[in-house]
Order: sequence, then structure tokens, then C-alpha cells
Amino acid sequence: MERVLLSHGAGGPEMAELIDRVFLTCYAADDYVRDDSFALTLDGRHIAFTTDSFVVDPIFFPGGDIGRLAVAGTVNDLLTAGARPLVLSASFILEEGLPVETLTRIAASMARTAKESNVAIVTGDTKVVPKGSADKIFITTSGVGQIIRPGVSGAALQAGDRLILTGSIGDHGAAVMLAREGLLDGENILSDAAPLTELVLRLLEAGLEIHAMRDPTRGGIAAALNEMARQSGVCVEIVESQVPVKPPVAAACEALGLDVFQVANEGKMLIAVASEDADAALALVRSCCYGAEARIIGQVKPGPAGRVQLKTLIDTTRLIEPPRGELLPRIC
Amino acid sequence: MERVLLSHGAGGPEMAELIDRVFLTCYAADDYVRDDSFALTLDGRHIAFTTDSFVVDPIFFPGGDIGRLAVAGTVNDLLTAGARPLVLSASFILEEGLPVETLTRIAASMARTAKESNVAIVTGDTKVVPKGSADKIFITTSGVGQIIRPGVSGAALQAGDRLILTGSIGDHGAAVMLAREGLLDGENILSDAAPLTELVLRLLEAGLEIHAMRDPTRGGIAAALNEMARQSGVCVEIVESQVPVKPPVAAACEALGLDVFQVANEGKMLIAVASEDADAALALVRSCCYGAEARIIGQVKPGPAGRVQLKTLIDTTRLIEPPRGELLPRIC
Repeated sequence: MERVLLSHGAGGPEMAELIDRVFLTCYAADDYVRDDSFALTLDGRHIAFTTDSFVVDPIFFPGGDIGRLAVAGTVNDLLTAGARPLVLSASFILEEGLPVETLTRIAASMARTAKESNVAIVTGDTKVVPKGSADKIFITTSGVGQIIRPGVSGAALQAGDRLILTGSIGDHGAAVMLAREGLLDGENILSDAAPLTELVLRLLEAGLEIHAMRDPTRGGIAAALNEMARQSGVCVEIVESQVPVKPPVAAACEALGLDVFQVANEGKMLIAVASEDADAALALVRSCCYGAEARIIGQVKPGPAGRVQLKTLIDTTRLIEPPRGELLPRIC
Repeated sequence: MERVLLSHGAGGPEMAELIDRVFLTCYAADDYVRDDSFALTLDGRHIAFTTDSFVVDPIFFPGGDIGRLAVAGTVNDLLTAGARPLVLSASFILEEGLPVETLTRIAASMARTAKESNVAIVTGDTKVVPKGSADKIFITTSGVGQIIRPGVSGAALQAGDRLILTGSIGDHGAAVMLAREGLLDGENILSDAAPLTELVLRLLEAGLEIHAMRDPTRGGIAAALNEMARQSGVCVEIVESQVPVKPPVAAACEALGLDVFQVANEGKMLIAVASEDADAALALVRSCCYGAEARIIGQVKPGPAGRVQLKTLIDTTRLIEPPRGELLPRIC
């Protein structure tokens, strides 16, 4: 590993290796979290803290834009920690010459998404670099939330848990790739970028036995499920026929040579719930905005630990591997 | 204002205008703070939250690097809110092809600076963009701290307050500009990039009547003093003979055509303290690491409100205006 490659930012094993070799080696490794949020305890209060940078290209795409993505992504990361999102920061790196009207459209989209998420954008920073030193606009959002259910974590899957997926997969990645390639086929593939505040908070407040949540962004559900299985030391078993994929998204992924399981989502959640609460949780998710298409897509087994197994449409079983390689650069 | 210009990121009036026109107009303006930190109250606990992006060029310079800058800058912003820094996030935007050894040197510098600041880097993100879409490395750090002295704010200056400056000005900006221009004249100008944790926490814990703190980064002390005067509705009067400037920094600023009052510092603090506590505060600051050269450089008067006056070396009085224009792009 001599130079940083696109694969080091793709959310797969190469990125994990870079984090291990560089950041965990340099920082005090005990403190650093692999989950999307860090849990800080202050005078007995549990606070979630998270950050993400957004470099998506193009900055506007069917169904969303870099601003909606940045707010929804950080809100969803706080939610995965069992936290109620409270405040966000938004820091901008702008390329000299960006039209102010473009920046204003993005800020307005962020404000709308924040309002929908019931959070406030309270602080930020603005840096401008000379033309050619950055591509249009990069946004880094950070967030603080109050943890209302401590212990929800990608490392807390338990054998017997059911896995709920809140809707169809691949929409965001397919929409961005088609927009980037100029292959806009009308409006029938839209990014799913959305904040899942209502859905997750209602689940947590209902007192259901939620063990883990993960939003399957870079690397798709293949990456998210493998991370959870590895962190929890369990096996995740998924039933292919239960995983919703919209037909135009499936067709686009086939045309682009992409495995839809590895394609980014920006408004979906994987939720591990105790089996006795699975039906109630599913009914509740389906009653929420962004959850109407939710399904139970699988379950958690004791072993083989760290593996994700797929029961295919033709009733065979195969492994879902963590996605490797470059995948889709600048997808989020 | 049709396009984003370098001056929109320079920390002066143009940046304030962009923030007003775009961000405050789009976001719920009541929530957004102009101070460097937002104060969040959670179950009676006061939490400070801040963010900054760093795009300095070159990424290594005499006395520091982009990593030390990013950690010290965010730590110092938390301190200005009267907070004890607790945890940081660090999000990286990397240009494809960056040597991993370079990234490792920067991460190691961040870890050392975090240790010196008594904070932990607990979470982060890594994005990689194709070669040419960013310049080497941009870092966004965010921080959370516990406010131990509520009400410390740039808007809390009071007439009669004394202003302490913790050391000489212009060192960071001069060091970066000389390095960028290839004008390295030995090692006699070093960036002052440093976390001021010890100095500020000892002041706060001593129970001294501290009203306001501001780290004079982009736009130098000219920008910081004007912001404080405007936010507080008071006049700040500075005595030129009391403002420490190292001779090589003064010479470099003259050669580069820069006003040293407008040049960025990254390890200095302006501290407004009630007059009866000024001598005790100065003695305490001088006993701390990074505070040995501290001076009382001026005082706060009731009016004219929003103005910064300089008593010059030849005993005349002139206004210090908020710096306008491009100043120094990519200085932090």
C-alpha cells in the first residue's frame, strides 16, 4: 500500500485496511469507533457524535443533491446509534467560481432536509480554494444526538434476531451513476436519499427489542451486513426473494455491470430486532414515511461467525462477500 | 455576488456576507451561531460543538502541518466557548495517488496534537476522489466539549475589560506564505499552530472573571477584534507598542506586502478579562506553555460601538478596519 487509491474510499476491505494501518495505528486505537457513531458519556448522559464528508458527482441528481445527502447521511448515522439527532454542523469546501445560486440551492435543500429530520444546522465553516484545487463543492456534516437506547450497535446482533430492510435497494447508486454517465432515462430511477428520523424514533420509543441498525450506504447491503456479522461474531442469513429491488434499478445495475447488493443506498436502514418483536416492528416501520416497502429479509444464526449467507432464488446457498475494489467513486 | 470568490473564504466581511445571504437565509437563522462554537444544553448540561475544514497549502510547513492545524484549530474553538474539549472527529477528503506515507505522517501529527490537547479522536470518515478533483488532502475536524464556564462569548465584552494576547502575531501566516513561495529562510519563522488547552483551562478553573475569548485565525487580530467589538456593541482600544511581533515576521510581512494585524495565527488567544482580574490572569497565562510572551494589549471602552481603535507608536489613534479582499487563500 504505497498510494491512496479510489478503493481506499469505497467502504470495503481496502478502506478498513487503510483505517487500520494509518488511523488506528496513529490514534489511540481504543478510542476509535468502527460504528458510524461514537457514544460519549457525560455525567451519565449518553451522547452520539458522528461525521461524514460528501463528494458526490454530479452534485444534483434525480431524487436529491449533495446537500440532502449530507444532512440525511449524518442524521441516519446518529439514528443507527439509537440516538435522537439534535444538532448538525456543515462545513463547506468550495471551488472558486462556483455560482452562488448553486450554493444557495444546496443550502436550501439542506435546510429542508434538516427540517424534515427535526434537527437544526447550528454551526459551520466555509473554505474557498482556487479554481482547479477542488471539484465544485465538498460538504462535511457532523452531528450530535442524545442516545435514547444505549447499546444499539453493529456489534450487538444476536442469534435468532430478524433483519428488517426498510425498502428497496440500489436506488441511490443507480440514480447517481446514470446521471453521471448522462444516461437519464426519464425520471423512473430516483435516489432514495432521506432522513429516517420518524421511522427509527418511533421504533425506539415503542420499546421494541432493537439490537442493531445500520444504513447500507457505500458498499450497499453487502458491506453493511458483512460488517455487522463480523463485529457481532454471528452469521447473517438473507433470503434473496425477500430483498426488494425495483425493476428499473435491477435493469440499470445489469447494464452498468453492478451487483445491486453492493450499490449504495441513502435512505434505507437494516434493523436487527428480537424475533418476538419482529412482526410488531415490521408493522410499525411500514406505517412510517419511507418504510412502506419494508420486509423481513433474513435472520441471524450463531455461525459460521462473520459470514453472510444468501438463500438464492433457485434455493441454493452462497456467501455474500464484502465488496472489494473501486466500486463507484464519488457516489456519496 | 454571482460566483464564489476566494475572498468569500477569507474570514472577512465578504465571508460574513456570504453566510448572511446564503446560509442564514436558508437555515433557520435563529439557531445558527457566528461564534466559533455552538452551545447546546442537554438536561442542564452545557455542551460546545464546533467544526472547521482545513485546506492549507503546503500541507507541511515550518512549525506544523495540516494535521496539527486541524486538531489545534478545533480544540481552540471549543476553548473559546469556555469548554473543556472532550472528543474530536476527523474526516478526510484524499486525492487519489496521495502517498500513504504522507497520510500517515499527518495522522501521527494529529495524534500527537490530540494527546497534547488531552482529547481523543474518536470517529471519522475517508473519501477518495479521482486525481485532479482535489489537491492532496483536505481535513474537516469537529469537536464536542463540556462547557465549564457558560456565557463566555465574543458577544460578552464589557467596558473596562482588559484584553490579553497570549503571544506574538503573524507567525502562522508568515510561515505558510514563505513556505508556499519557496522563500524558506532557514528556520527562523515557524507556525505557532498549537492547542491552548492548558492555558485556557487553568484560566477558567482559577475562577477569574473571563468574559470572552477568540483565537485570531483567518484575518488575524484585525478580524477577531472587529468581530468581538461588533458582536458586543463596544469599542476595543489596542496599544500598538504592546502587540508583540517577532522581527523576522515583521520583515517577512513587509516584504510580502501584508499587514501583520491581518495575518492568521493558529496558537494564540485574545482574552477579555475584568480589569480587577487582569494582572492575575496575565501572570497565570505567562506561566503556561504557549503563554510566556503574553501581554495586555488594550482595553474595552463603551464606544464608539463596533469600532477597533489603535493607539499607534507615534501616539496617534487610527481605526483598525475588518480586513477585506482575498488576503491569503489556503492559509488554514
